[in-house]
Amino acid sequence: MPFTRPEPPYYAVIITSALDADHLDGYAEMDARMAELGRAQPGYLGRESRTDAGGRELTVLYYRDAESITAWQQHPEHLEAQRRGREQWYANYHIEVAKVERAYGFDRHA
Amino acid sequence: MPFTRPEPPYYAVIITSALDADHLDGYAEMDARMAELGRAQPGYLGRESRTDAGGRELTVLYYRDAESITAWQQHPEHLEAQRRGREQWYANYHIEVAKVERAYGFDRHA
Repeated sequence: MPFTRPEPPYYAVIITSALDADHLDGYAEMDARMAELGRAQPGYLGRESRTDAGGRELTVLYYRDAESITAWQQHPEHLEAQRRGREQWYANYHIEVAKVERAYGFDRHA
Repeated sequence: MPFTRPEPPYYAVIITSALDADHLDGYAEMDARMAELGRAQPGYLGRESRTDAGGRELTVLYYRDAESITAWQQHPEHLEAQRRGREQWYANYHIEVAKVERAYGFDRHA
């Protein structure tokens, strides 16, 4: 999903994760709910996400500033989703909060 | 490919790209050569990469510092690969250079 990014600086949250294929009860519903709720958070800019054939996911969420990320991390419904994720759905995840300092691109048809 | 990350701060280069499926002559060889050369650069830490069914790729390359990224961007063979990429292989790409400020994770089996 391409989206229009602002000029740097802005923030990226890089999430590498693997689901536990044997314990996905309730995951799809919660994932959809978190995506909906996450999109509505102040400072949310957009996302890029890819999942390979083995279920390993790489997602980058973009935010206006670090405060927006902290607020979303501490949202009560999101805290509950994180707790269930660790207990049940995820085999592992790794999350990095990074400040985008510069950006550039190329589009043949732009 | 999980790899052991150092404590922040370190750097991430987030690359969103789409290949032009009709113009991939020579791409696989150059991609393999750049991966080999890139891994050997000072300051290179590792990478995460996923490609979806439509050929859209999301890659994050990790580096010790911003100087390592600049040096790799200006490597003569890499400059030539970038030029051919714009001329021939890529429909589009977007590159972001970001400083990882904090990181955390979870592993059920750790």
